[in-house]
Amino acid sequence: MNNVSELAPKNALTGRPASAGVKTIPGGITAPKGFRAAGIHCGVKKLKKDICLVVSDAPAACAVVLTTNRVQAAPVLLTREKMERSRLCRALVVNSGNANACTGDRGMKDARAMAEAAASALNVPVDEVLVSSTGVIGQFLPIEAVTAGIAGASRVLSPRGGASAAEAIMTTDTFVKEFALEFECNGVLARMGGMAKGSGMIAPNMATMLAFVSTDAAVEPEVLRTALARAADCSFNRISVDGDTSTNDMVALLANGASGAPPLATASGPSYEAFFGALERTLVALSKMIVRDGEGATKFVEITVTGAADESSAVKAARAIANSNLVKTAIHGEDANWGRILAAVGYSGIEFDPAQVEIFFGDVAILRRNYAIDFSEAEAKEVLSHDEITITVDLHAGEAKASFWTCDLSAEYVHINASYRT
Amino acid sequence: MNNVSELAPKNALTGRPASAGVKTIPGGITAPKGFRAAGIHCGVKKLKKDICLVVSDAPAACAVVLTTNRVQAAPVLLTREKMERSRLCRALVVNSGNANACTGDRGMKDARAMAEAAASALNVPVDEVLVSSTGVIGQFLPIEAVTAGIAGASRVLSPRGGASAAEAIMTTDTFVKEFALEFECNGVLARMGGMAKGSGMIAPNMATMLAFVSTDAAVEPEVLRTALARAADCSFNRISVDGDTSTNDMVALLANGASGAPPLATASGPSYEAFFGALERTLVALSKMIVRDGEGATKFVEITVTGAADESSAVKAARAIANSNLVKTAIHGEDANWGRILAAVGYSGIEFDPAQVEIFFGDVAILRRNYAIDFSEAEAKEVLSHDEITITVDLHAGEAKASFWTCDLSAEYVHINASYRT
Repeated sequence: MNNVSELAPKNALTGRPASAGVKTIPGGITAPKGFRAAGIHCGVKKLKKDICLVVSDAPAACAVVLTTNRVQAAPVLLTREKMERSRLCRALVVNSGNANACTGDRGMKDARAMAEAAASALNVPVDEVLVSSTGVIGQFLPIEAVTAGIAGASRVLSPRGGASAAEAIMTTDTFVKEFALEFECNGVLARMGGMAKGSGMIAPNMATMLAFVSTDAAVEPEVLRTALARAADCSFNRISVDGDTSTNDMVALLANGASGAPPLATASGPSYEAFFGALERTLVALSKMIVRDGEGATKFVEITVTGAADESSAVKAARAIANSNLVKTAIHGEDANWGRILAAVGYSGIEFDPAQVEIFFGDVAILRRNYAIDFSEAEAKEVLSHDEITITVDLHAGEAKASFWTCDLSAEYVHINASYRT
Repeated sequence: MNNVSELAPKNALTGRPASAGVKTIPGGITAPKGFRAAGIHCGVKKLKKDICLVVSDAPAACAVVLTTNRVQAAPVLLTREKMERSRLCRALVVNSGNANACTGDRGMKDARAMAEAAASALNVPVDEVLVSSTGVIGQFLPIEAVTAGIAGASRVLSPRGGASAAEAIMTTDTFVKEFALEFECNGVLARMGGMAKGSGMIAPNMATMLAFVSTDAAVEPEVLRTALARAADCSFNRISVDGDTSTNDMVALLANGASGAPPLATASGPSYEAFFGALERTLVALSKMIVRDGEGATKFVEITVTGAADESSAVKAARAIANSNLVKTAIHGEDANWGRILAAVGYSGIEFDPAQVEIFFGDVAILRRNYAIDFSEAEAKEVLSHDEITITVDLHAGEAKASFWTCDLSAEYVHINASYRT
């Protein structure tokens, strides 16, 4: 489940293949120039790595996307404050094993202590430190162990520390999620790298969706913000494991300019499109890894709704299908249950004519217009027997389309989530 | 799981206990005077009862609530047409085993043939027949067997046929769902009886939510409609098994006046309140039975949100908790995971201050204001070990409240739904 295929990804801005002039490279978040990272064990978890530090040698422009949940963990609240004071970032500190959520005033004090520990160890302004946490809700951090861990991590920072950092942000993830690529930015070769953790997406008790991306391109903060908002919308906002959203979800993007590429100052034009393409591809790659590692998942499912009246309708329909327990269990059972897919579109809230809908599993037409059904169960079963499944729903109501990525719902999901906290 | 407790039900209009002057009685949908019913096997299913006929000796006023899914089965479309032509009803015909959904023109023809078969067998106007179906989507009815079955059922109608009728509308239900009571209406003793089928709520392939209620009170059609809309909102719209809504969902209410009680002509005043109280109690009782029989369910959960700014906020918060896979799996695992409950309220879209929230499992306070947590795991575990669990969330944001009923999410749910169609 952890091999990432990228089936002809397209740039959401231009509609052209995203691959032109782009090459995947190793190194994760430390692949771009001028970034160092470390991941170590400090004692939040019993044995595994639980503290991660990422440092940019020069102040980086920074943009973030934070959870829309009304219940927000202390590090999310602190990040909101920090972003109001400064759009620059020198360091990112993340602990796993404890979400520092629903911890009130003491939680805020602990989050600030994490930022101060990193600022002091690295000799950078405290307002240039981003803090993030993931893990159990409603318990206080062992803050002395955490601040000691931050100091310890600062002593082993390495330009090859990406994988170690990515390991330290995992909770129930079963594999490290990192991705990096090279791309041409304003005529100069630049790099982008990222890491993520997902799993329950979100199990507020022990998991959450976090992603951190670095680049050595030079990008104005406002342009960075525009690009991140749009790219997150086409990636992390289009995946679903169990439909819950977390108290701690966070995506951060740092651009330090170390490539020497001239700065991107506007959110338009070919250079911006190239940058956006690289970002979108990085976020989509990380998003797909999160889905592949969904709790109990045995199948990766790409749902594409085409022929929609507008993009918003396509997204709504695709989301309803991706979030349906009935669709997800049918896929788990390799059952070509097109009725559940059509019913999910039916309650998605969009306008469409059910009699016009066509549904494909892979290349096999399952439902044709006017409810015409004439498919071989054997062929459908064959498509559904694979680890990767594509489902296409054509509404025949317009030209817009959208994809969503999800996984099946297995009995193992129930086992994992029935006794997480204890 | 099939014993129905009614924990001090309250009338949603008056807020007073619903039990005053009300007594539960046997007989289900044939408990009221002037109703006869039958349930037989006609051949849609292999062996079990699959056709149900309910007849009112006199024309009954009629109100219906139909699915909001854009994909609507032929009998739903036909019912919509019928209600535009006539608000009277003499007969109700329901088949199980086949939903007659996504069947296009032929499906409409088959639904009309069912109405005509009933009208002809009973010698009543075809516009006074309601048709309903539940079962597999996308397959044509064996219409000759069905119409023969309708004729057969018309020959065995009985004023004691309620249980048999209730059995014939079941799909994956594991027990018959019926309920009846006596109440005082305009100074005269009247009766109300109902039957329902639920299960996957909804598994569009083999299950759906149907409920049919009869009364021998006399009620003007417009008053009936007002009462049914409100009562359905406080019952069937407050239950959740898997959050999906069906192509076939239907609730119908028939009032034939056979009690001799003077007609209810306005939707206000003490007589209306008594009638509404009886209806609400009947629908809530049937709703709870549906939840109890949720696919794979091992626990019945009542979720009450109190202290909300308004009722709509209370309903939204309660629904988000009830629909959360993470909450439902935690309850299955008997894990006092309050963080998942608070996170669900957080993404429900309502305004509230998380630090003010208090959460109770049964009588045990799990979370107090300002995230104060001081409960005995043993006590919480004890509450969660029961088959019936009440969860109360106090938002401390106002005076409004709402309850929702749901069940846990078990591995058995996945097993049932992974291979329904085949």
